[in-house]
Amino acid sequence: MTTTAIRGGLVITATEEIPADVLVEGERIAALATPDSAFARSWTVDRTLDATGKYVVPGGVDAHTHFDFPFGGTASSDTFETGTRAAAWGGTTTVVDFAVQSRGASLREGLDTWHAKAEGTCAVDYAFHMILSDVRESSLKEMDLLVGEGVTSFKLFMAYPGVFYSDDGQILRAMQRAAGNGGLIMMHAENGIAIDVLVEQALAAGRTDPRYHGEVRKALLEAEATHRAIALARVAGSPLYVVHVSAEEAVAELAQARDKGLPVFGETCPQYLFLSTDNLAEPGFEGAKYVCSTPLRPREHQAALWRALRTDDLQVVSTDHCPFCFSGQKELGRGDFSKIPNGLPGVENRMDLLHQAVVDGHISRRRWIEIACAAPARMFGLAPRKGTLAPGADADIVLYDPHARQTLSATTHHMNVDYSAYEGKEITGRVETVLSRGEIVIDRRRYTGRAGHGRYVPRATCQYLA
Amino acid sequence: MTTTAIRGGLVITATEEIPADVLVEGERIAALATPDSAFARSWTVDRTLDATGKYVVPGGVDAHTHFDFPFGGTASSDTFETGTRAAAWGGTTTVVDFAVQSRGASLREGLDTWHAKAEGTCAVDYAFHMILSDVRESSLKEMDLLVGEGVTSFKLFMAYPGVFYSDDGQILRAMQRAAGNGGLIMMHAENGIAIDVLVEQALAAGRTDPRYHGEVRKALLEAEATHRAIALARVAGSPLYVVHVSAEEAVAELAQARDKGLPVFGETCPQYLFLSTDNLAEPGFEGAKYVCSTPLRPREHQAALWRALRTDDLQVVSTDHCPFCFSGQKELGRGDFSKIPNGLPGVENRMDLLHQAVVDGHISRRRWIEIACAAPARMFGLAPRKGTLAPGADADIVLYDPHARQTLSATTHHMNVDYSAYEGKEITGRVETVLSRGEIVIDRRRYTGRAGHGRYVPRATCQYLA
Amino acid sequence: MTTTAIRGGLVITATEEIPADVLVEGERIAALATPDSAFARSWTVDRTLDATGKYVVPGGVDAHTHFDFPFGGTASSDTFETGTRAAAWGGTTTVVDFAVQSRGASLREGLDTWHAKAEGTCAVDYAFHMILSDVRESSLKEMDLLVGEGVTSFKLFMAYPGVFYSDDGQILRAMQRAAGNGGLIMMHAENGIAIDVLVEQALAAGRTDPRYHGEVRKALLEAEATHRAIALARVAGSPLYVVHVSAEEAVAELAQARDKGLPVFGETCPQYLFLSTDNLAEPGFEGAKYVCSTPLRPREHQAALWRALRTDDLQVVSTDHCPFCFSGQKELGRGDFSKIPNGLPGVENRMDLLHQAVVDGHISRRRWIEIACAAPARMFGLAPRKGTLAPGADADIVLYDPHARQTLSATTHHMNVDYSAYEGKEITGRVETVLSRGEIVIDRRRYTGRAGHGRYVPRATCQYLA
Amino acid sequence: MTTTAIRGGLVITATEEIPADVLVEGERIAALATPDSAFARSWTVDRTLDATGKYVVPGGVDAHTHFDFPFGGTASSDTFETGTRAAAWGGTTTVVDFAVQSRGASLREGLDTWHAKAEGTCAVDYAFHMILSDVRESSLKEMDLLVGEGVTSFKLFMAYPGVFYSDDGQILRAMQRAAGNGGLIMMHAENGIAIDVLVEQALAAGRTDPRYHGEVRKALLEAEATHRAIALARVAGSPLYVVHVSAEEAVAELAQARDKGLPVFGETCPQYLFLSTDNLAEPGFEGAKYVCSTPLRPREHQAALWRALRTDDLQVVSTDHCPFCFSGQKELGRGDFSKIPNGLPGVENRMDLLHQAVVDGHISRRRWIEIACAAPARMFGLAPRKGTLAPGADADIVLYDPHARQTLSATTHHMNVDYSAYEGKEITGRVETVLSRGEIVIDRRRYTGRAGHGRYVPRATCQYLA
Repeated sequence: MTTTAIRGGLVITATEEIPADVLVEGERIAALATPDSAFARSWTVDRTLDATGKYVVPGGVDAHTHFDFPFGGTASSDTFETGTRAAAWGGTTTVVDFAVQSRGASLREGLDTWHAKAEGTCAVDYAFHMILSDVRESSLKEMDLLVGEGVTSFKLFMAYPGVFYSDDGQILRAMQRAAGNGGLIMMHAENGIAIDVLVEQALAAGRTDPRYHGEVRKALLEAEATHRAIALARVAGSPLYVVHVSAEEAVAELAQARDKGLPVFGETCPQYLFLSTDNLAEPGFEGAKYVCSTPLRPREHQAALWRALRTDDLQVVSTDHCPFCFSGQKELGRGDFSKIPNGLPGVENRMDLLHQAVVDGHISRRRWIEIACAAPARMFGLAPRKGTLAPGADADIVLYDPHARQTLSATTHHMNVDYSAYEGKEITGRVETVLSRGEIVIDRRRYTGRAGHGRYVPRATCQYLA
Repeated sequence: MTTTAIRGGLVITATEEIPADVLVEGERIAALATPDSAFARSWTVDRTLDATGKYVVPGGVDAHTHFDFPFGGTASSDTFETGTRAAAWGGTTTVVDFAVQSRGASLREGLDTWHAKAEGTCAVDYAFHMILSDVRESSLKEMDLLVGEGVTSFKLFMAYPGVFYSDDGQILRAMQRAAGNGGLIMMHAENGIAIDVLVEQALAAGRTDPRYHGEVRKALLEAEATHRAIALARVAGSPLYVVHVSAEEAVAELAQARDKGLPVFGETCPQYLFLSTDNLAEPGFEGAKYVCSTPLRPREHQAALWRALRTDDLQVVSTDHCPFCFSGQKELGRGDFSKIPNGLPGVENRMDLLHQAVVDGHISRRRWIEIACAAPARMFGLAPRKGTLAPGADADIVLYDPHARQTLSATTHHMNVDYSAYEGKEITGRVETVLSRGEIVIDRRRYTGRAGHGRYVPRATCQYLA
Repeated sequence: MTTTAIRGGLVITATEEIPADVLVEGERIAALATPDSAFARSWTVDRTLDATGKYVVPGGVDAHTHFDFPFGGTASSDTFETGTRAAAWGGTTTVVDFAVQSRGASLREGLDTWHAKAEGTCAVDYAFHMILSDVRESSLKEMDLLVGEGVTSFKLFMAYPGVFYSDDGQILRAMQRAAGNGGLIMMHAENGIAIDVLVEQALAAGRTDPRYHGEVRKALLEAEATHRAIALARVAGSPLYVVHVSAEEAVAELAQARDKGLPVFGETCPQYLFLSTDNLAEPGFEGAKYVCSTPLRPREHQAALWRALRTDDLQVVSTDHCPFCFSGQKELGRGDFSKIPNGLPGVENRMDLLHQAVVDGHISRRRWIEIACAAPARMFGLAPRKGTLAPGADADIVLYDPHARQTLSATTHHMNVDYSAYEGKEITGRVETVLSRGEIVIDRRRYTGRAGHGRYVPRATCQYLA
Repeated sequence: MTTTAIRGGLVITATEEIPADVLVEGERIAALATPDSAFARSWTVDRTLDATGKYVVPGGVDAHTHFDFPFGGTASSDTFETGTRAAAWGGTTTVVDFAVQSRGASLREGLDTWHAKAEGTCAVDYAFHMILSDVRESSLKEMDLLVGEGVTSFKLFMAYPGVFYSDDGQILRAMQRAAGNGGLIMMHAENGIAIDVLVEQALAAGRTDPRYHGEVRKALLEAEATHRAIALARVAGSPLYVVHVSAEEAVAELAQARDKGLPVFGETCPQYLFLSTDNLAEPGFEGAKYVCSTPLRPREHQAALWRALRTDDLQVVSTDHCPFCFSGQKELGRGDFSKIPNGLPGVENRMDLLHQAVVDGHISRRRWIEIACAAPARMFGLAPRKGTLAPGADADIVLYDPHARQTLSATTHHMNVDYSAYEGKEITGRVETVLSRGEIVIDRRRYTGRAGHGRYVPRATCQYLA
């Protein structure tokens, strides 16, 4: 069993910032100790990493990725192999990806398919949520089984009629089931039925450019669906997690629910924090790069998102990583924005962008680690193994250089996609070294990991509800 | 330097619950380690405490005590010696007491007086807030000096005209000063000017019993003052901490402010969570035992307080420990409730009562530690030395037996007061052993501490604002 | 042209209470005058009605009736003939009934059918709303035509999937059309999709009694639908009128919308103000008498409804008169509450019940007339002909005895239904004499009207929006 | 007794817009009739006014004027004679002015003084509110007497410490008294204690220009005081009327109170609707012309005020007419904005400016009459004599030309002040002819009234509370 000491860094978790040495035995953290203690000094280890001047933080937990995800007649361009490798580069050591139930098929079939995609290919650990596309009696029963297997969260869509859409009755039934089996319902909250009317009208009126994607998917219709999902969850007595919140009005719905003490949670994504409808309106067809749903919002929504991250009305920042190459994929929607595959790359950039938010004064260092590591781990039943640095936790550890400068670019990133949503953006802070369960997968900006190192992690139920 | 190992317990902090061994070197925690790690097993220490079946938690931080406090022509019955000893018995290892500026006098004089009261007498560590009774140009300047000395919070009163009361102009000036020097304004938020009218009218109408204390100090007038304090803080650009919040309507004001992202914080106390106007209305003059301000509220307010503790609209539970003996002190108000000295004992009971709240399902174990230890420490600039268990932190540690049963009673408590506000209440959970800076002050329910062990702790400014 | 003078009464309108004589020339009010004016004294008229000690008020406008309405395999038991006669008895001189578009059929067909039902049979004037059961391109176009014919309001259902239900896309399209043609969308706001799940579950669990009707149609699901309807109306830029609001939470949604200045309106009905789930829970199958949707709510919701009527967050009280005999009709739902035809009788009782509310102190006399006469007239484009007493208005006038006492009962009422929802209720106040367009239809508690006197009244668009 | 017929106009009241002829007998309205009725045609009258193409509206009720008002070492420049004449020119036929209790003096003395000022000098009718400057036991008792004499409203100030200021205890006592005697408390809601700190700091920092008047009197401090006044009124169980509301945040407090059904009312003034801090910032010392308290706000507050006028969260528009000549009066504050006498002229402009708001689409014609005539009359116990056109009402009638155009200017106005706050503003609509109690005081833009025509009108208590 290899032992490693990480010495001289500033250990940052969701709640502490302490100069401490970290001792790793095999795959797990064995101890944290004060650097000047007799005990720390007495350790004898196989190898020592010098973290002087660095942050020592938990590996990131990205609770929302779509690798090899079929959508809009194509599939997202990162496989589990390329995607988890990019995650490692970006300091993320756990991803929770979405297995998909096909209409007419069982959850089991979907989950098996996704296990097959991931098995033996991942650079870092992974887990699964399950997308319910077809809520019916048999699907509901399968939910219980999946919870038992560590797939403890189920995503439903109020958008995409005819594809992933569930009606309010199906949603209510799934929520009731989750209330019984401990599962967490994740909701794509947009009123897709109303949006599709606006899409049709926009196209009929010749408004086909990418920016109309942002106009028809109105903030009010995100807020409405958020409100409705909360109401249904109250009726069902179930918790609720709203994914990719982007509109100020939707945040207000969450805040109101939380003031009442309801078990309602929300996630936003870096694209909503750093990009806006200005990007969707970039000339030519460039805006297609930024087409995702919920859509980017006008810049003034960003303040509400940052505030909610500070006030804990939003708890998690995930990426909703779902990359499509501009060439050949995004281009499917030339002349019809509704045919542009929805999704953005980001799994590699999240930890850095959120550190930049620390630099910019939006959040504290501890909150950075909380929203990027600790909260997603706790939300999805991965604590205390993931998301923190504590004795007994998996040794998923990032040595982060807070002073290094880098420029985000498709030319240097490791995601399998031909553009960056943040091309040219300058960032302060950079991942230096990454351990995944004690193994060094990024070593001073060199990839030393391997496909297959990453393991499936069965999850407990949401740990905010205990 | 003595070394101690605490082995076999469940370490609980504000964010983690992990089976871990704690290693203490001298006054500080040197390391936390997994019990089964080679390193933990290899420790050689001077003594080992067996925590099997116990919780190992940070010593409590009670941010609101009044020892030897002159009020209403008498003084609170606990000295720093008796009070801090009782604190130790109750698992609280740090108290923040209130030094008082007398009208016409300087802050310095007040602070020196309180230092003199505490010096050499305390069983556990202590720090000071400063009560501003006389906001004038010179007091404002002194605030800066006190911040430099580690007295970083200043209490103002919107109640008690003629005694501690500051008008809105004085409050605004103090807040402006705090905005500049990093101080935290603590507010007793009740509209005392209006309340005094109601007091006078009640007495004139012959309503002199203790229960009228609760009727004249109306919830609406607590909420009003809370709202006003928030408005003044916004104008001043300063943070605000509202002490002893008891009314649902006041909680709503805090929640609203926090939704806006304002740096507004709130504390409640065990008496508001466990007692009610039913107690104030106890027959005879018994109600006097429960006279404090803000007053106890009707039972239905409790749900709002618990909810706010869960949703983080209230961050801290302190005691506002300010005991007066029933005999000879509370009795000063026979026939005139306004002459009953305001205050309740509680410093010994807080950790236990809040653990009971865990047992009752109101809060989680981690939240117990957060509101009783971590949050007050961070709020008042004591982190990471106090309020948590982490390498480098002071070895203020409680071994807590979560299964032991006890009955609260004046016959068994250690506070210097002739009654218990919770007489006869049965509690599950009990402090077993307490370390203060590595020294065992309670050893398996035996007091082993000493007056003078406790030291003055200068504080940093509020750590929620960094 | 017959002239009539009504002398000596207290004229009450939505805004005035004045001792005044009313002069009627033919079908219209020619003048109001002070009783002691030379001019009033100089009138020579064909007949004089003595209103001494009486109120002289506008005839009621009931904006929500369902005569001869097919529902649940049966039809409401009042025809236009019996229903409008009962209306006259109750002081209501204008009804707005709902013509129904059948699925697959045109609006025109529906409207023609309803015209045929009403023509030549009515005791008082009538107008039509149109129920949209099948929103499609051709229906949308027909809306414009109907507005031109004086059918300026269109009802949609978020409940009753498979019958009247429209999905959010259909609703949005109809609202957009209304935004263009001036029509007012009336909404049955309950999440019927979710409710039907709860119905199915209740029945499956053997909860088949009438009271479960109230339990499954949850207040939260009324509030949710109300919120959603408001959001869709905002997206469409259209006004909205929510029918039969019964839940406190739904009222809150309306109040919030109105605070924002949105053109959102709400109606409640006497049954929600005077009855409750206690009635639904009456022993045996008696509760079936009170089955309507939205359902009766727990008694504590009533205070919110009264308050909203006072604060103008609700503007109109209509009856949703839709009677089904207990015998043979309500009984269809024995053993399955979902088969009980939804609806209550009430067109005859509204003016009296609301006067009782004046007596009870819930509302003022002027507000009584406003919510029962003036506001529904203005809401549905009937002002200034209907709903007020003013020169030029139709001479629809009620002489109301505010001191007479009566007991509501099926044995004495004139509605064609075998029970009264208010059986045995004692009321202070009674309609004495009623004029419809100058013709006396109730003469000192004797019916003197005739089928066919009542005429179709084409309506202007909503007059709150000018 | 002179009889007058006003024929051919469109009669507009708070609730009706009807083509009607108005018949006046002596001082009162005898009848309203349809122009084409036999009765209207049969009238024989002493004189007939042709209102063809005109609006016939109630004379305005300005519930907030300060004639001959001592303030800041000078006195407002309009006497009752010049002020009421200007009112008549502007279509206002009733003013409610403020009698002032001096510190240390009785209400009686103050009221007598104001009666003496007004008696025999007024062009139109007048009534009085009473300013309480010195709330003590004897003042409270006098309140009852004044209510009996028709002075049924009492103004208190939360601003102007040392002058008019009452503390919260005095306010509470006055409110309690009003709750008993039916009086209406009118509140100047600004936290004057806090504001005076900011004033002192601004002056000390050399910020002496008029625009700093707007900066130190912060919107938050208006909202705070509004909230506090509402809370105190709830405690006292009394109604509340907040004068000259200018800040969006204060409007929100009123809206929230009204949603709860509290008897809370609000007034704004034309200056807040049409002017802004842009005016206060006019170059040189010009801004002084616009110094009043509450101060003008940034332009974006106007939308909230208009919305509140539409949603009835504000009920009344008064002028707070309190003119000071620029030359010699406003100039007192050169070099020190706090010495600028607070107040603006406006009694002549109110009806026109609000008609312009009709033209601009902010409010309907009926709402114009409601906020300018009917609501102030009802609020202050003058209905149905004042504020409406109805049989029995005083014949205070304005023939208004809705198409005439005029330019507001000090060169043409009739107020005794050397500037206009609206200099050069173009307005559509103009008062043509004005009757005061049947007497023509403005005859086709010629003044035909006389000092002494106007009479004191004792008032009933607030008629919104019946």
